[in-house]
Amino acid sequence: MNAELIAVGTEILLGDIVNTDAQVISQGLSELGIDVFYQTVVGDNPERLERVIREAADRADIIITTGGLGPTLDDLTKETLARVFGKEMELDGSSLERIRTFFDRIGREMTPNNEKQAWLPKGCTVFVNEWGTAPGCAFEANGKHVIMLPGPPRECEPMFRQCAMPYLYPLAGGCIVSRNIRVFGLGESAMESRLHDLMESMHNPTIAPYAKVSECFARVTAKADSTEAAEALLAPVVDQVAAMLGEDVYGIDVDSLEQVVGDGLRARGLTLAVAESCTGGLLSKRITDVAGCSDYYLGGVCSYSNAVKRNVLGVRAETLEQYGAVSQETAEEMAAGVAHALGSDVGVGITGIAGPGGGTDEKPTGLVYISIFFNGECNTRRTVNTFGRDRVRNQAASTALDMIRRYILSENLH
Amino acid sequence: MNAELIAVGTEILLGDIVNTDAQVISQGLSELGIDVFYQTVVGDNPERLERVIREAADRADIIITTGGLGPTLDDLTKETLARVFGKEMELDGSSLERIRTFFDRIGREMTPNNEKQAWLPKGCTVFVNEWGTAPGCAFEANGKHVIMLPGPPRECEPMFRQCAMPYLYPLAGGCIVSRNIRVFGLGESAMESRLHDLMESMHNPTIAPYAKVSECFARVTAKADSTEAAEALLAPVVDQVAAMLGEDVYGIDVDSLEQVVGDGLRARGLTLAVAESCTGGLLSKRITDVAGCSDYYLGGVCSYSNAVKRNVLGVRAETLEQYGAVSQETAEEMAAGVAHALGSDVGVGITGIAGPGGGTDEKPTGLVYISIFFNGECNTRRTVNTFGRDRVRNQAASTALDMIRRYILSENLH
Repeated sequence: MNAELIAVGTEILLGDIVNTDAQVISQGLSELGIDVFYQTVVGDNPERLERVIREAADRADIIITTGGLGPTLDDLTKETLARVFGKEMELDGSSLERIRTFFDRIGREMTPNNEKQAWLPKGCTVFVNEWGTAPGCAFEANGKHVIMLPGPPRECEPMFRQCAMPYLYPLAGGCIVSRNIRVFGLGESAMESRLHDLMESMHNPTIAPYAKVSECFARVTAKADSTEAAEALLAPVVDQVAAMLGEDVYGIDVDSLEQVVGDGLRARGLTLAVAESCTGGLLSKRITDVAGCSDYYLGGVCSYSNAVKRNVLGVRAETLEQYGAVSQETAEEMAAGVAHALGSDVGVGITGIAGPGGGTDEKPTGLVYISIFFNGECNTRRTVNTFGRDRVRNQAASTALDMIRRYILSENLH
Repeated sequence: MNAELIAVGTEILLGDIVNTDAQVISQGLSELGIDVFYQTVVGDNPERLERVIREAADRADIIITTGGLGPTLDDLTKETLARVFGKEMELDGSSLERIRTFFDRIGREMTPNNEKQAWLPKGCTVFVNEWGTAPGCAFEANGKHVIMLPGPPRECEPMFRQCAMPYLYPLAGGCIVSRNIRVFGLGESAMESRLHDLMESMHNPTIAPYAKVSECFARVTAKADSTEAAEALLAPVVDQVAAMLGEDVYGIDVDSLEQVVGDGLRARGLTLAVAESCTGGLLSKRITDVAGCSDYYLGGVCSYSNAVKRNVLGVRAETLEQYGAVSQETAEEMAAGVAHALGSDVGVGITGIAGPGGGTDEKPTGLVYISIFFNGECNTRRTVNTFGRDRVRNQAASTALDMIRRYILSENLH
């Protein structure tokens, strides 16, 4: 069983965006044991789109397209696939209703061209789009399976995982179960070399390393006739991998570091407040990405100017003068200051030079001090990251969360 | 003149890496006015590689491959292209010498398989690899131009820019210039229906609508013999499109709403502070994504708990009791309060229900109040978004920035 990916979008051919959908889908298919031999990108052009569809139909069992499902004139994926596979199009009432409701909710007029999104190949399986307006769909014809997904990654990724993969399970033969072992504080290559021999020796389950922004994870995937059998294969290998990666593992099948830290704070009845300079609110944003964070998160202060550091956080003028805004001393007074000002158990202080400019020999661009205040004491780390403003800021926010996990939430401390 | 991109690498088909080379090369070709109609990814398999090469040779003038130039057995790109185009391979002495020197320099033994990298199609133009070991190359055969580049982005990108683009200049008839008209407050479909007739009638320049998170843009693209001629074609159409989209246009060829607002505040010597509840620091994070924002941004307060709203921002207890934390009144006291507490000219207050839970009939999930304080007055908007926590928060942050642009920075106000 093999699949071919077709991305439809002139913006990819122009280099405006990278085809990240292809990666997400290819990873999922490889988990399912479905081979991918070709990926193609084609523009919003009916003749060329038809050409690549016919090529794919000639050499693949499953065709998965991304993009071209939208309301505009140049969105042609559904119409072209339907034509090639001899399917009629019909208006799907429930999809139309969902789109209408959406426009009512946001109080915008639904322009007529939006109805186009509710026209689908007759008899297809509809993938409800809970992340946007254009529904996806799947159908079987001439012995081939055709799956259409929207192009925007924020819609494509969840729809592939939640709608397309279940559709593919029966085709994949047997069922696949994966566990993601999430790691912070260890690079992907370091993780891979630690797991290398085990990875080489394992075939079912398989172990694959993946890198994410400022963290990485190992995915263990087992294939079996039943979920139970797959779980049974997984359990010992997951334990073994987790043991090999030790304290750098922050969770298994968890959403994120912010989720793990939030759950830990809630479980211990601790409250959190953060003071951010160079991260500018990114840490607070990530903490509040987690629904229900108001159980433990009181709030934060972005003290971009020194006046705010002094007046709101109570950082002493002498500290700023003597050691500078980017210093261990300032980070610690920020951490203690925000805990005091907001009345939290745990306080975080982050100050650094995100760049691109502002660095000196003594304090280079990418230098960040991160301090965690708890029980009257500060635990502070100095990090330097040279990968640019975004990476510096993400790394600093992640490090702060990881320090709370290691120093405050680790079981052996309580 | 059109080009087709072929990426050779099983790691892309497995989803281990994203095909970023395709973006870099497509951007460069679009600058040269060379169309890209297809991009293909194929694994390290000689039959399938030959198949996509023959397809590309059938439909493109220029074939550009990335990857498969390395020393290992499964690196087959050069050999396969040479076979398809009837070229002999020969050992390139200077390339071999460079590879030897490279290994001497890093003090590692040059294993025999590395010599493979110095075998190139007879009579080709050699692209010296100053960023790795495998040279790239280009040749013309059967009226087609073939260019081979290494796969690793750190080698592919500079070699494309410094070697391949100069090779392509003489082939690139004319050049292409684009303008992006950035829009907030109008959906993609609404924008498209407004521009529909013009889009249909135009062929050079062309007009294309694109969607981004909580905003969209129209790209106007002109093709001509010279940049000047393309600019001349663009100017009137860009003006026409901008006029048709009116006040919803926040900039042309600008980076982002936060960049436009930042430049406007700097130009007017105004300072900004923000108070965020449901956005949790996202707005502050986006403002500080812009390097140099310390010129106008003093800082922010994430007042997730009511205690912080009262104690740090000075929101009155009666207001919270009588109208609730999610209300126009609270948003306005947050906006005025943060401007007062941090001493800024402009204050932003955002309070809402990001969800997934917490909604009521009267105050549904996705309801957000956004208030802008300036010159002693508040300007407040109520928005409802039903696309889930992330979209609600992004929409709210973007709306706050757009309100500053419309109500404070718009020329006619000053």
